[in-house]
Amino acid sequence: MKLQVPGFKAGAVAAGLKKDGSKDLCIIFSEVPACAAGVFTTNQVQAAPVLLSKERIKSGRCQAVVANSGSANACTGKQGIEDAEAVARVAAEALGIPEELVQVASTGVIGRPLNVSAIKAVMPKLADQLSPTGLYDVAQAIMTTDTVPKTVSKQGSIGDKTFTVAAVAKGAGMIQPNMATMLCFVCTDIGANLDLLGQALNDAVATSFNTITVDGDTSTNDTVLLLANGLSSLSLDEAACATAFQKILNEILFTLALQIVRDGEGATKLADIRVTGASSKADAARVAYTVANSLLVKTALFGEDANWGRIMAAVGRSGVPITQGRIDICFDNVYMVKNGQGCGEDAEAAATGVLKADRFTITIDLKMGNKAATVHTCDLSTDYVRINADYRS
Amino acid sequence: MKLQVPGFKAGAVAAGLKKDGSKDLCIIFSEVPACAAGVFTTNQVQAAPVLLSKERIKSGRCQAVVANSGSANACTGKQGIEDAEAVARVAAEALGIPEELVQVASTGVIGRPLNVSAIKAVMPKLADQLSPTGLYDVAQAIMTTDTVPKTVSKQGSIGDKTFTVAAVAKGAGMIQPNMATMLCFVCTDIGANLDLLGQALNDAVATSFNTITVDGDTSTNDTVLLLANGLSSLSLDEAACATAFQKILNEILFTLALQIVRDGEGATKLADIRVTGASSKADAARVAYTVANSLLVKTALFGEDANWGRIMAAVGRSGVPITQGRIDICFDNVYMVKNGQGCGEDAEAAATGVLKADRFTITIDLKMGNKAATVHTCDLSTDYVRINADYRS
Repeated sequence: MKLQVPGFKAGAVAAGLKKDGSKDLCIIFSEVPACAAGVFTTNQVQAAPVLLSKERIKSGRCQAVVANSGSANACTGKQGIEDAEAVARVAAEALGIPEELVQVASTGVIGRPLNVSAIKAVMPKLADQLSPTGLYDVAQAIMTTDTVPKTVSKQGSIGDKTFTVAAVAKGAGMIQPNMATMLCFVCTDIGANLDLLGQALNDAVATSFNTITVDGDTSTNDTVLLLANGLSSLSLDEAACATAFQKILNEILFTLALQIVRDGEGATKLADIRVTGASSKADAARVAYTVANSLLVKTALFGEDANWGRIMAAVGRSGVPITQGRIDICFDNVYMVKNGQGCGEDAEAAATGVLKADRFTITIDLKMGNKAATVHTCDLSTDYVRINADYRS
Repeated sequence: MKLQVPGFKAGAVAAGLKKDGSKDLCIIFSEVPACAAGVFTTNQVQAAPVLLSKERIKSGRCQAVVANSGSANACTGKQGIEDAEAVARVAAEALGIPEELVQVASTGVIGRPLNVSAIKAVMPKLADQLSPTGLYDVAQAIMTTDTVPKTVSKQGSIGDKTFTVAAVAKGAGMIQPNMATMLCFVCTDIGANLDLLGQALNDAVATSFNTITVDGDTSTNDTVLLLANGLSSLSLDEAACATAFQKILNEILFTLALQIVRDGEGATKLADIRVTGASSKADAARVAYTVANSLLVKTALFGEDANWGRIMAAVGRSGVPITQGRIDICFDNVYMVKNGQGCGEDAEAAATGVLKADRFTITIDLKMGNKAATVHTCDLSTDYVRINADYRS
């Protein structure tokens, strides 16, 4: 289905912030002020646009989002805040809306000052060319080390009435939740108040961006914004509609989260690390993240090497109480480890076959309880190192 | 100085445990039963030789250490324990000593059963060829992905009496303390009781192996053994001697710890990550480890890219309370960040020069207190990934 939502326009231009001259500045605009909720990075080092947007989102109202790549506008001090405010102001002027209704987001190199004059110069042109089909351009303009733009849209219906949700995201490195390091903008025409919208967003983030990791690093700029303009005849006030919306929102964000892991810097594999039999969900998640972030596990996946010993070692250092003689490990449906011991060469051969696929599940059963959690990760390749050793140069 | 200690003999042979036919089985033998202390992995998944040696070391006495590479004998269940016991037994028989005085250690692939019959076949030959100068052969026989053997020896003196300490170690990957993943065997002719020897070892490990990281992974097989045969005329019972011994033991283990980081898989740089101005030593260490293990920081070091934003981001996600506007970061003596903001292009150019060296210090001043900690790490290169993607194949 089309990447557009009634009442939303969007567009992007090249402002010269990216060295390669590609699109790097974009706007999402709602024809009417939308109800808006946001989730932001938990990193204590927070970029200027995050600090500004966190403050403004408290009103629950937003009419435009301005985002740029090429500079994170992080660790830029008081000047960074003034620059973020200036960008919002010039966008508000170009769009003819109050500047308090503008959210800002940035991604790129930390510490590089934002080139505000370049942004000012192109803003009128950008505001003029917004179009109902412009979200795809937004997805392109926010890319940094991403290799593909990340988009998804879905429709829900209650009786003969429909609502639409469309979203774009970026992220490929500095990805570990709370929140997965990324930008994500979600547009919908459903009606909402801030309480219901915020709760819906939090729930959807918990089961999507907060279950992925690329490199265990959390960025200074993570931002997820959800704008609901109410132009459909459906509202979250109706329970059936809220249920339908939550389901679609969960799907939307989960789809984007997996797109981010799949596009993890240098990644060639998507691995679902599922931990079962834990005493608590927190324990399960902690074990899953320890395995998902282990360099030795991730390099073994890249090498298509069913090296379950590295998984056992990661489980053992996770800090969660375990009994090594109870642990089972499966690669998809192939048992590699039963009660803490390897299942032999036939099992390894079968598991090596599993690892040739570009997506598979590694299940770790701790047999300590009945709680489970899944974390989505990617492998660690030589290209990851190349990309990150060369990123700024 | 020579790598030998009065009263100790050592040697190594190729038992066929390593595919390349190099030395993989070794013995360190004390002509008299030695006082012995050990420190072992904190990983909850522990190899059979660790389980056996931890139990035996409680007696505080040891006369021989048998170590092998090629198999970690980890995750091998009851059979693994029996295999470790069998290796100790056959060594004891060949050496003519009680088997309770034999310590065992293994390193290599997890889950691969130990080839005990191959070990039995060569043990008599190994026992026959032990020599006072054999520690260097031991250092070679315990290598896995290590590119160089790791050895050090020193002498101390009180008046005209001397004591000697010589040690070997291995480790290049799966390296993060508690304890740094490695094997280390230390021989000395000082006199000691178990209490004093154990305390001296714990102190030395805390300031050496527990301050390094290569990849954040903790192995199942970490073992440090310290054997003191008392053949010198000096003893830890004398305070002056205890002080002199502690100083030398600290130097010995710290030297080996840095050798391990320098030989980190694929490493091209040794970086000392120093965190100052923390509220507590634990906070300082936590921030230092978060930075030292950040893939984005480590790949930037490999690329000789003074990307201080990644350091700021790692500090911010460490979980330690910080104020971003206070943080200073120096590369050696070059200020890169003052009060949370970059120091400009001249500073970056100077810092890039610092990064061209093969060793440098990154100092992060949190300005939250007066506690400090230093962690020693290496960069993350494309070779790290190659080594670990291919290790078992």
